[in-house]
Parts: sequence; C-alpha cells; structure tokens
Amino acid sequence: MNQASGYRACVIGLGSMGMGAALSCLRAGLATCGVDLDAGRRDELAGQGVRTAASVAELGGDFDAFLVLVVNGAQARQVILGQGGLADHLRPGGAIMVSCTQSADDARALGADLQARGILMLDAPVSGGAAKAAQGAMTVMASGSDAAFDALEPLLQAVAAKTYRIGPDIGQGATVKVIHQLLAGVHIAVGAEAMALAARADIPLETMYDVVTNAAGNSWMFENRMKHVVNGDYTPTSAVDIFVKDLGLVTETGRSLGFPLPLASAAFAMFQQASNMGYGREDDSAVVKTFSGITLPGNKS
Amino acid sequence: MNQASGYRACVIGLGSMGMGAALSCLRAGLATCGVDLDAGRRDELAGQGVRTAASVAELGGDFDAFLVLVVNGAQARQVILGQGGLADHLRPGGAIMVSCTQSADDARALGADLQARGILMLDAPVSGGAAKAAQGAMTVMASGSDAAFDALEPLLQAVAAKTYRIGPDIGQGATVKVIHQLLAGVHIAVGAEAMALAARADIPLETMYDVVTNAAGNSWMFENRMKHVVNGDYTPTSAVDIFVKDLGLVTETGRSLGFPLPLASAAFAMFQQASNMGYGREDDSAVVKTFSGITLPGNKS
Repeated sequence: MNQASGYRACVIGLGSMGMGAALSCLRAGLATCGVDLDAGRRDELAGQGVRTAASVAELGGDFDAFLVLVVNGAQARQVILGQGGLADHLRPGGAIMVSCTQSADDARALGADLQARGILMLDAPVSGGAAKAAQGAMTVMASGSDAAFDALEPLLQAVAAKTYRIGPDIGQGATVKVIHQLLAGVHIAVGAEAMALAARADIPLETMYDVVTNAAGNSWMFENRMKHVVNGDYTPTSAVDIFVKDLGLVTETGRSLGFPLPLASAAFAMFQQASNMGYGREDDSAVVKTFSGITLPGNKS
Repeated sequence: MNQASGYRACVIGLGSMGMGAALSCLRAGLATCGVDLDAGRRDELAGQGVRTAASVAELGGDFDAFLVLVVNGAQARQVILGQGGLADHLRPGGAIMVSCTQSADDARALGADLQARGILMLDAPVSGGAAKAAQGAMTVMASGSDAAFDALEPLLQAVAAKTYRIGPDIGQGATVKVIHQLLAGVHIAVGAEAMALAARADIPLETMYDVVTNAAGNSWMFENRMKHVVNGDYTPTSAVDIFVKDLGLVTETGRSLGFPLPLASAAFAMFQQASNMGYGREDDSAVVKTFSGITLPGNKS
C-alpha cells in the first residue's frame, strides 16, 4: 500500500498552476480532489480521474491538506474562513498551504485568525509556471511552524521540486515572493524600455535580442518575454494585469515597511498604464506598447 | 610564416580590457604594441614581451590597426585626432577600431571627421570583462563599412570570440552598447533595491539570493553582483562611477532621440547618489548603500 494513500488532499483553484498541482497529487498517490467555481475547469480535471466540486462542502468529509491557489489574498481569506470554508473541513492535525501571491500583512492576518482556531497554516507562495506545476516541480517559498511543514510534507513532496524554508514566521514566505516579483516585473519593464529604445534608434530588434541574450545584460525575463516583442506576438503566457496586481503588492509592501522602491514604483506605473491602454489581458511584454513614437514588429494587439 | 605576421597592431589604453586585448594580439602572432600614459601599466605589458610607449609617435612607423580602449568618447577623439594622434600613423588601407563606450552622436562625429581624412573606422564597443579580454574572447558590437571590417579582420580574430555586425552606419554599434548598459545598470540597481527591501523585511539575504538565482527573477547581474552584497564585500570588479558614466550616456541617448526612459533615469539617479555619498570607486553593487534604515552584511565601505 502506497505510503501516501489515505492522505486526503484538495486543491482549491484550478487555474494553470492548480490544475498541474492536482494532477501531481494524483500521480503521487494522494486521495486528491479539486475545487473551482468554473465548470469547464472542473470538467477538465475530472476527465483525468480527479473528483471535483464547486465547493469543499459538496465533496463531503474532512481533509488532511488543502492547497490554496486562488488569485489573491482576499479570495484566499474568503475560501478559507467564509461560511462552509476550508477551516471547517480539516481532519485533526491537518493543515492549509496558502500559495497565492499576497502581501505579508494579509498572510499574517490570515495566519493569526487560523491560529486562534488551532489550525496550522503554511505561508507558501509558489513559482515556476504551468509547465513546472504539471510536472510536480514547482518552487515553494515557505514559512511557518515545523508542525505545519510536517503536516504538509506529503503534499509538498507531490507538487514541489524545491521547497525553501524561509523561516518560522507567517509573512516571510509572502515577502520573499513579493520581492521576487519586484525583480521579475522590473526585468520585464526594463526589457521593454530597452527594446523600445532600440526601435527608436532603428536597431533591428532581432540583433538587439541576440546581443543581450549572449551578454551580461541578460535576464531570465528578458530572454523569455522580449522574444514575444521580436515576434510581435502578445498571446499571453502571463498577462499585464498579473503584474499590475503583483507590483501593486510590491508598492504596498514598500509603504507598509516605510521603504522607498524607485524602480518598482516606476515599473508599476508602466504596467498600470499598459492596462489602462487596453492591454491588460495581453502578454505582460505588451508593456512595451506604452512607448509611443516607435514602430514595433507585427501589428497584432 | 604566420599569416598574421607583418600586420602591425597597437592597443591604445592598457586598462584591464586593453591589457588582455594586447596579449591576445601577441598570441595571435600580430606585431603588437601598446600605448598608455601610465608607466606601471606599460611595464606590466612590456614584461610580457610587448613593445610599449606613452604615445604612438614614440613607437615610430605606421600601423595597420589601432584598437582604442580608452575611457570615453572625449579621450578617444583626443587620442585619434589630437596632435600626433593615431590618424597620422596609419598605413594605407589601415583602420581604427574604436571600442570605448560612447554616445552614438560622438561616434558619428568622430566617424565623419575620419571619413573626411579618408580613414576607415569601426564603431565597435566591446563587452565581456577582463577575463574574456585576456582570453581573446571579447564580444564586439560593431558597425561600419565592409572595408573597415575587412581591414580589421586580423585584429577582430585576435581579440573577439563573437563579433556582431550590427549594420553599416557608424553610431549603430555605440547605440547597441548603450542599450546593453541600460539593461546591465538597471539590473544592478533593481537587484540592490530588492536586497535592500529584503534586509528591511528581515529576510536573510543568503536565502533571498538563493531563491532568486534559482527562479525567473534572476538576471546575470543579480547573480554576479548581489553575491557581493550578501558577502558585504565591495572590492570593485567594476565601479559605481562606471555606471554613473554609462547610465549618463543612456539618459543622453534618450534626450538625443526624444525618448522617455523611466527606469534608466531612476537607476542613473541611484548610481549618481551612491557616487555623491562617496562610494564612486567601490563595486557597482554598492548602489545598495543608497538605502537607509537597513543593516547590511559587513560594515566595510
């Protein structure tokens, strides 16, 4: 009998990350369920043999572990503490892994409310994208008590290739993810600024891309996202509005800590502008379209 | 007889890049000389068997190729067109490879003056650092006429692992280098901003570094330079004042092209501030010291 069998896990939020995480749990031999309000997403996962429902109450019984992969902190709070929420459906000793990107303040408030009810929580944002999630190879930046790490060990084994134990305090995981997103967002925005300047100076963008990706000016995001600008293809891998949200969290974190963030604040303004121009659902590299007076490859928008 | 022998090349400016380039020319079998005003640098190269002098006039005779690796465009203009300058010491069909980082406007003005005298110029900034230069493996971003590329072929073979032919017009090479430095400079500054925020939030910097360098928020510069912040060691590999100069060129390029550069402008202000605080000769990662209200590893400055 599989060591993991009998461990009942449920993934809340079946977006691209949640879908992959749920299938990874199934492959790892966990008794897996999935919850999403969207019937299409539920059907997709059910087709792979995972039991799904629109709410955890419909599934019946209690769980050892919840993995919360909803969009933001407000949704996480609602789905966990709202009426009929996850907090009412945990087995004794069970725990909740909260993996949405949210502010440290929101993570701490949620952690305090759960602690008051005797419920273990891991503050555990993730990265890696849909492909890594599908492979059970997400990167997890987690903070919380040893008891919470222990209770979620089978779930972490199933979904993560690497788990960073940032520290014991709820909020530390959220902070590390927010700071990571600061870098990721600024790298996309400055990639766009550089490519826009190249276009203005009549430098062929393929050449600019080739030089940078083979030199010290490269970044993971430049290499991945500026290819979309070179190709003039803004089909979203991750959308502009995701960085409006995440860089919004970054600037909120700066305010909360009383700390100036000149570059992140400028990049946030660029993504907010791109969204207001109507590009919110395009690929995040569409932030390049905030620059006027240039001709970019392709005319798709 | 070596195909390159008889091809007389002279490197002007024996800093870390010029020193490596001169030794690479020697290894490639070129008849190599080196020029620098600093006697210590001349002695270092002379000890390796390369003939050196404080000026090209002292060396006697004419050259097939000059490689100009001085600090900026003003120095390049002086050493090439000033009294007894390089322009007076070229063999017929010889050419000058101008490899300092300078504005496209300065490169174009120099190119026009040389063209009026019938002298070939390659606008050919380089990157790769001292280690690559020593190996004859610099990256060259070059623009100019086919005749200039042809005349400098033995020199390029000796010093470069990769030569990008950006286009036929003087100024294009300078522009590509300036845009590359835009990215490099902002990546250092935002790395500093992220690490400073981590320090403010009591996240261990080693952990933050480890997470970022294994995730999509990484950049070449973050990985290379933020290690210095983690170690609290600001011994310069490249100094703050280099990026005051290079991001100054970036903002000058933005003004010249009438183009807004929100992130580069903010990063330039950060490096200028670091220099004014007295950190100009420290490693460029010392831009992190512009943030107050945090405790960083080490107390060296």
